[in-house]
Amino acid sequence: MEFNTDFKPLTVQPQEIESLSFEIITSEIGEHPFTDEQYPVVQRVIHASADFDLGRSLVFHREAITAGIAAIRAGKPVFADVQMIQSGISKPRIEKFGGKVEVYISDADVAAEAKKHNLTRAIIATRKAVAECPDGIFVIGNAPTALLELIRLVKTGEARPSLVIGMPVGFVSAAESKEELAKLIDGDVPFITNIGRKGGSPVSVAALNALSLLAERA
Amino acid sequence: MEFNTDFKPLTVQPQEIESLSFEIITSEIGEHPFTDEQYPVVQRVIHASADFDLGRSLVFHREAITAGIAAIRAGKPVFADVQMIQSGISKPRIEKFGGKVEVYISDADVAAEAKKHNLTRAIIATRKAVAECPDGIFVIGNAPTALLELIRLVKTGEARPSLVIGMPVGFVSAAESKEELAKLIDGDVPFITNIGRKGGSPVSVAALNALSLLAERA
Repeated sequence: MEFNTDFKPLTVQPQEIESLSFEIITSEIGEHPFTDEQYPVVQRVIHASADFDLGRSLVFHREAITAGIAAIRAGKPVFADVQMIQSGISKPRIEKFGGKVEVYISDADVAAEAKKHNLTRAIIATRKAVAECPDGIFVIGNAPTALLELIRLVKTGEARPSLVIGMPVGFVSAAESKEELAKLIDGDVPFITNIGRKGGSPVSVAALNALSLLAERA
Repeated sequence: MEFNTDFKPLTVQPQEIESLSFEIITSEIGEHPFTDEQYPVVQRVIHASADFDLGRSLVFHREAITAGIAAIRAGKPVFADVQMIQSGISKPRIEKFGGKVEVYISDADVAAEAKKHNLTRAIIATRKAVAECPDGIFVIGNAPTALLELIRLVKTGEARPSLVIGMPVGFVSAAESKEELAKLIDGDVPFITNIGRKGGSPVSVAALNALSLLAERA
């Protein structure tokens, strides 16, 4: 492969872009309700979305940051609801602690079971993940039914997640599923979620990547 | 694997969720400047982001829809700037026309070349894609440097994309890179972009998936 190398780009390198972006975010965010411990997650969510409103809509369980870091360091498996999240997660920082990132929504057994019971594949994939590891890390950025099922399994005692990042995006059940998660604020399941319709894969990934960076650095 | 199947979910199936979401979008979007031909792309971008402002910020080259559909039907390769986009694209609808979805940013030769020339991997990956197929479909949702490099190669005549979906997100160069693309509005390169900092993988994927659905249906 030959490259044309006579181009002098005006752009900077990725690390510089990230640092400069973080400076801009900090200079523009204004007053916010987040602690110093929570702020790196907020910052990375805004970085991934360019959306300050979305960043300000985050809700943290009191143990979310410490428990999230501990779970990553303990090598708990990470279960993503869709492939885009699996693709986006910085896997070396999960794997160095013995963890892995799994996604079951496209598995043949999940599809068959979903069809049989007329349930979403997201519901069945959530059950499969909980059956494999009830205290895993769950990152849900798309499927409200996955999040609602996980909350149900928390209530039945079948799931005891080490961390839930629940930020489905959309117009049907997304906001409602996050409201259900936020109702667990006084419980003992650590979570990060947000209020409203917005959310999605990149912001869910950003939240987990912020925690894995903290796990590595702290 | 055993499943607990005594749960009657209140949620609906994915197809129903999508239809209902589209109804909500159409009922809430209000006045907008888009043609009937462009609207399916706008609708899917809003569906993916729950962000009407982002949807309204879209800019279409006059040939974007017809040329995009034609390129997909002709089996032109799709080059994504990051893995998340490759993951999100509905590949069966690309492959049935003979196309494929490629991403080069993590290739060893790209990394080596980027290091050698102190350029971003995104720039080198764009050059590799253009060298492979100058008239491919380019979907750029993250790296402003990829989009700026593609625009440069259009201007030198090395790239003649069948379609550019350019919607990088972020605080440094993202908005500027899209402004550069939008300046090509009177040229002959079909593109879809948006104004401002927002953008990203899911909305870029949504735009391409909307076109591949049109390619399949029409």
